[in-house]
Amino acid sequence: MSSVSILEQGRSLSLQLGGSTTRFHAVWLRDNAQDVDTRCPGNGQRLITLQDIPAYTRILAASIKGRVLSLMFAPEAKQVDYDIDWLLAHAYDRDHSRAPGWLGPELETWDSAMAGLVPSADFAGVAANPQALRVWLGQLARFGVARLEKGPVEDRSLFRVVDLFGYVRETNYGRHFEVRSEVNPTSLAYTSLGLQAHTDNPYRDPVPTLQVLYCLENSADGGDSLVVDGFRAALRLREESPEGFELLSRCCARFEYRGEDGVILRARRPMIELDPDGRLIAVRFNNRSAAAITDVPYDRMEAYYAAYRRLGEIVDDPAMAVSFRLEPGECFVVDNTRVMHARTAFSGAGLRRFQGCYADKDAMLSRLAALEEKLALEGAA
Amino acid sequence: MSSVSILEQGRSLSLQLGGSTTRFHAVWLRDNAQDVDTRCPGNGQRLITLQDIPAYTRILAASIKGRVLSLMFAPEAKQVDYDIDWLLAHAYDRDHSRAPGWLGPELETWDSAMAGLVPSADFAGVAANPQALRVWLGQLARFGVARLEKGPVEDRSLFRVVDLFGYVRETNYGRHFEVRSEVNPTSLAYTSLGLQAHTDNPYRDPVPTLQVLYCLENSADGGDSLVVDGFRAALRLREESPEGFELLSRCCARFEYRGEDGVILRARRPMIELDPDGRLIAVRFNNRSAAAITDVPYDRMEAYYAAYRRLGEIVDDPAMAVSFRLEPGECFVVDNTRVMHARTAFSGAGLRRFQGCYADKDAMLSRLAALEEKLALEGAA
Repeated sequence: MSSVSILEQGRSLSLQLGGSTTRFHAVWLRDNAQDVDTRCPGNGQRLITLQDIPAYTRILAASIKGRVLSLMFAPEAKQVDYDIDWLLAHAYDRDHSRAPGWLGPELETWDSAMAGLVPSADFAGVAANPQALRVWLGQLARFGVARLEKGPVEDRSLFRVVDLFGYVRETNYGRHFEVRSEVNPTSLAYTSLGLQAHTDNPYRDPVPTLQVLYCLENSADGGDSLVVDGFRAALRLREESPEGFELLSRCCARFEYRGEDGVILRARRPMIELDPDGRLIAVRFNNRSAAAITDVPYDRMEAYYAAYRRLGEIVDDPAMAVSFRLEPGECFVVDNTRVMHARTAFSGAGLRRFQGCYADKDAMLSRLAALEEKLALEGAA
Repeated sequence: MSSVSILEQGRSLSLQLGGSTTRFHAVWLRDNAQDVDTRCPGNGQRLITLQDIPAYTRILAASIKGRVLSLMFAPEAKQVDYDIDWLLAHAYDRDHSRAPGWLGPELETWDSAMAGLVPSADFAGVAANPQALRVWLGQLARFGVARLEKGPVEDRSLFRVVDLFGYVRETNYGRHFEVRSEVNPTSLAYTSLGLQAHTDNPYRDPVPTLQVLYCLENSADGGDSLVVDGFRAALRLREESPEGFELLSRCCARFEYRGEDGVILRARRPMIELDPDGRLIAVRFNNRSAAAITDVPYDRMEAYYAAYRRLGEIVDDPAMAVSFRLEPGECFVVDNTRVMHARTAFSGAGLRRFQGCYADKDAMLSRLAALEEKLALEGAA
C-alpha cells in the first residue's frame, strides 16, 4: 500500500510506503530526473545545469503506479517518472545528527584480536578470478589492510599487485622505492631501525591513499611487519578523552619532509580528519615528519599535546597491533589514510629487501564497486 | 633588548623581544628540539616519539645569548639551544579565531579583471631557467592558473610540462586523455558541446589537484578556454549569503561517474571544503557528475539548493571569468581544487584537439619551495 501527497503548494511531496513516510523536495526531484533530456543515456552525465531548472519549480501532479512515481513539474510542464526503490535508496528525510567520529557502515575496525586473521589471498587466485578479486578488494576496503601470498619473487612485482586494482602514484621517491638499509639514508625508513607505527607521507597533500609493501628478501633477524587500525585508535581516544579527540580533529598539525635535495614537502592537516558532518575519514600520524605545530591556541596547546601523546600510546599499545612476517613473494596493501604500519628493528647476517609504492583508493573502490555490480548481475541472471 | 621568563613552574616560558611577548610550552619546545639526538642531522627526521619525552617535562633554566635561547629541561637534565628567529617564525601564542573561509596569505583571488593578464611564460624559458620556473610556479601557486606558450606541437608534449614540476597522476582515463569529439562519448568532454565551468573529477577521492590542458590543434570555430576562480566564487557566495556558504561547506555533496565499463567512481565531499579551522582549501563543482545529494537534512535542503544555484550563477557570471584561446603548442595548468575551467562550444570545418592529464600539487609546491630556497641562498651568497 503506497501513496503520495503533494505538500507546501507543490514545493515538496510525501511518499507513504507501508508504515513509513519520507519527503522529497520538488527541486531535488527535478534535479535528479533520469530522463534523456536531463541525463545523457550513454554515460549518465547530467546534460543541464541547476540554472536550467526554474527556481520556482513546483510539483503540479503526482501519482503512483506499481513501483513508479510519476510527477508533473511546473512551470516546465515536464513529466518525469521515478523508480520508487531508487528514491527510497536516496531518501534524505531522516535524522542527520551523529556524534563526531562516526564511521560508514562499510568499515569495520579491528585490534590485536585480528592476529592470524588478516585478510589474505593467493596472488594467482585474485589475478585470475574476478570473484576472488572482489572478495579480497572488499576486505581491503572494509579493514584497510589485506595481504597477498605466493606472488612472484621478481623485481617490481608490486606493480602487478597495483594492476589488480588501480594505478601507481608516482612521487619524488619514484614509481616505486627500495626499502633497505642505506649508509646515508634520506629517510629513516632506509635504515635497520625499528619504526613507530605511522601513516606514510603526511607531508604530502593529497596524501597517497594506498601503499603496497612487497617482500623480495627477508632473511634478517627481526624486520617483522606490524599494522594498527588508526580508526580504532582514534575512536579509542574519543572514548577516553572526547576533548582530546576534538582537539586532534579541530586543529591542524603540520608535517614536513626535506630529506632529498630539491624536495621540500609540507602539509597542514589535522591528525584526525573528519568530514564536515563528522565522519571519520583519515588519520595522519608520523613522529618522524611531524613539524612544529603552530595552529593550536596557546591555552589549548598542553591539552593538544596530551591528546597527541595519548594517541601515540594507544598506537603503541600491543593490544592494538597485528604483526606478521612477510616472506619473499608476499606483500600487504594498506589504506594509508587509516591503517598505520611499522616494522621491528632488524639485524644479523641476513638481508631485508622490500619494495614499496603508492596508489590511490579511487580506482580500487571503483574496481570493487564495478565487480560487485557485475557479479550481482551475473548471479541474478 | 630581549629577555626570557619561566612561567607556571617551568611548564612554559615567555620570550620578550622588543616590545612584544610570546609564550611557548615546555613540551612543545622539547618536542621541537633540533639537537642531534632528537632530529637526524642528515635528513631532519625526528628520531624520537612523543612518548620518549617525559610527560612532566619542565623548563629548569632559561637564558638568552645573542639570537640563541638556551634551555635546560627536567627531568631529562637536557640542554637544548634554539634559534630565536626560528621560534618567532613558529610562534603560536596569538589569536587563532578567524571567520570560516579565510585564505592563506600565499593566495590571491581574481575575476574577469585578470583578462589578458593570466600568468604566462615561454616553455623554453621555464625549461631552461630556474629563476623563470620559480616565477611561473609561484604564479601558478598564487593564482591557481598559469599558461605556457611556444611549446612543441607534438603528441604528449603535455608530459614535458608536467616534468617541469612533478608527476602525472594516472587514472582510468590513462596517463593522458584526448579531448576531441567522439561519436559515442564516455564523457560530454568528448563532444563539441560547451561545458559549464567545473572542476574535474569531483567523483574521485583524492581528486587530482592539478590539470594540464595542452592544445595540439584548434582550427574550429569556438572552443575557447575559460577559467573561473572557484575561491573567489565561494567568497562571493559567503558575502552574499553566509548561510549558503555555511551549507555548502558543512554538508557533503555526492559525485558519481560511470561512463565506462568497469568504472564506478563515487565521492562524498562538500562543494566548498574548509580545513577544520575554517581555511578555504577546495571547491568541487561539476553539474555533469553531481549525484543525488542525500546528506542534507530535509529542513535545510531548499536552502542548500538555493545556495548551490547561487554558486552556479556566480560561476556563470561573465564578471568572474577569464577566457582565452589556445593555439597549437600552448597549454594551461589549473589548480583543480580551486580553479574551474570550461570551454565554449565549437563547430565548423576545423578541428580541435587537446590533450589533458592530471598531476598533483604536492610535488609542484615542493619544487617551488626548493627553488625559492635555493635562489634565495644564491642571492645571499
